[in-house]
Amino acid sequence: MSEAPRFDDIRNAAARIAPYAVVTPTVHSDVIDARVGGTVVFKCENLQRGGAFKFRGAVNAVWSLSDDDAHRGVVTHSSGNHGNALAMAARTRGIPAHVVVPEGAVKAKVDAILAAGATVHRCAPTPAAREAMAAQVQATTGATLVHPYADARVMAGQGTLVPELLRCHPGLDTLLFPVGGGGLAAGCTLAAHGIDPGLRLFGVEPEGADDTVRSLEAGARVEPFAPDTLCDGLRTLVGAPNFQVLRDHAVHVVRVSDAETIAAMRLLWSELRLVVEPSSATVLAALLRYPDRFAGRRVGVVLTGGNVDLDALPW
Amino acid sequence: MSEAPRFDDIRNAAARIAPYAVVTPTVHSDVIDARVGGTVVFKCENLQRGGAFKFRGAVNAVWSLSDDDAHRGVVTHSSGNHGNALAMAARTRGIPAHVVVPEGAVKAKVDAILAAGATVHRCAPTPAAREAMAAQVQATTGATLVHPYADARVMAGQGTLVPELLRCHPGLDTLLFPVGGGGLAAGCTLAAHGIDPGLRLFGVEPEGADDTVRSLEAGARVEPFAPDTLCDGLRTLVGAPNFQVLRDHAVHVVRVSDAETIAAMRLLWSELRLVVEPSSATVLAALLRYPDRFAGRRVGVVLTGGNVDLDALPW
Repeated sequence: MSEAPRFDDIRNAAARIAPYAVVTPTVHSDVIDARVGGTVVFKCENLQRGGAFKFRGAVNAVWSLSDDDAHRGVVTHSSGNHGNALAMAARTRGIPAHVVVPEGAVKAKVDAILAAGATVHRCAPTPAAREAMAAQVQATTGATLVHPYADARVMAGQGTLVPELLRCHPGLDTLLFPVGGGGLAAGCTLAAHGIDPGLRLFGVEPEGADDTVRSLEAGARVEPFAPDTLCDGLRTLVGAPNFQVLRDHAVHVVRVSDAETIAAMRLLWSELRLVVEPSSATVLAALLRYPDRFAGRRVGVVLTGGNVDLDALPW
Repeated sequence: MSEAPRFDDIRNAAARIAPYAVVTPTVHSDVIDARVGGTVVFKCENLQRGGAFKFRGAVNAVWSLSDDDAHRGVVTHSSGNHGNALAMAARTRGIPAHVVVPEGAVKAKVDAILAAGATVHRCAPTPAAREAMAAQVQATTGATLVHPYADARVMAGQGTLVPELLRCHPGLDTLLFPVGGGGLAAGCTLAAHGIDPGLRLFGVEPEGADDTVRSLEAGARVEPFAPDTLCDGLRTLVGAPNFQVLRDHAVHVVRVSDAETIAAMRLLWSELRLVVEPSSATVLAALLRYPDRFAGRRVGVVLTGGNVDLDALPW
């Protein structure tokens, strides 16, 4: 399931997840509009079940399985939000979930995975260790791997937020989303250009995890990669099928610093009254850093999640 | 304008404020439902313009004025959210706003009032000082007083959130709201019983500002009153017309401690991913403190506002 989904897959995913996922609200702030010099609509995936967009992809994957596959369960490796989402999604179908979690993951996210009833398997915080542990669980249980981002079912699920957003705000001309592994970015890209090929699309990466920017410059996916950013959701090398979608659709990916992200995160908390995690704030940081690209525009941005440790805020 | 509004006034207010106010979303949490033992729907007035329900009443009052009265402006006294709301509401009609602010008000709220373009008048933190300063501004400018709660236009505006809530969630059998001056409480009571006289209504007060509980027990409004609570939005003696509405409709008002409120506030931040101020968290504190009254119920609660000092969180 590592090929990119088609637009029809996204439409089917929207119908498949409808009984389980929240149609998240959008919010708006005159103060932020004035700072950006344009109109900005925020799609609140921090208000999605589990507190992140990840539930969309996970529940689409879980309900795409045959009954035979489903009863053997699902497995994934995730620094947090996808693991939690898959645990919650598995519960909607009453099937087992196994989550491989690297050491150093945010405690609140690991607690949520356990609370959702999944089995947690710890590993070293490297891509190789994650994948080896997931393969081992797969071999012993027969569970289906639901990769956090290099999976067509996951990408299709994440993309479902775009038709929701454009249905409420058909006048948007630009969309921004963070780029980690690229499940959200690729899903949103395919959904957006499936609806309107003229939409301007921007990805955002922390300077300390700018592998997609560098890969697009190089024309091929760079690796290896040692992330250095507080955006714990974006420390991932972009997936191969994900990168291909972003390149084929000429998505512009821009960099922001962690300091810009922290300032933007604080602005979102105080002006939108929303709890968002650092990864989510990268999009507002980009709007403020590159005014020449966004002033006068009608911009939709994805607030990806709101799972933070309230005892360790970055200001 | 100190009499209570009629149900028609609330319907008219809904139409009057529609061009300016946000139809706020509702959110829900399986985790909180499990803790309460019932179904709880949260009406997110922290996502209202200005970050509090107060904008509803203020903008209804501003647009209820004749052109002659409007051009002389509006004045009020407020510890914060109503002052900010009136400043923003006045701006929608292009008229002057004067806000009397007691010393000790939350800095973020005073900054917001100034940013909205109002003139701020400082006074001592007592009801008498507030009212004297407001009367003085009224006398010198000809501005119309828009009282924070003892005003039929304000009560009617606040009540407009109830039809919005019940339209989306018609199965609710119980509503909870905090009680400060009682503008929200009276407006919601009149709206709720105007729609369904069988709805169970509960007000919530901090133990350190339980004047309405004591007034209902005594059968008449008690005073004077020295509030001692961190819920800065609820340090007000209930207004005379507001008290009468709550008494006539047999609203149950219950007490919660500040410690319970802080725990509930943290739960709202982590589970709903919403920034809410302490006053807003009293309603969840009440649901958790009085399970015999709320278990098995379908409860709607008002999250009143989200204006907090992010550098002085109470945990």
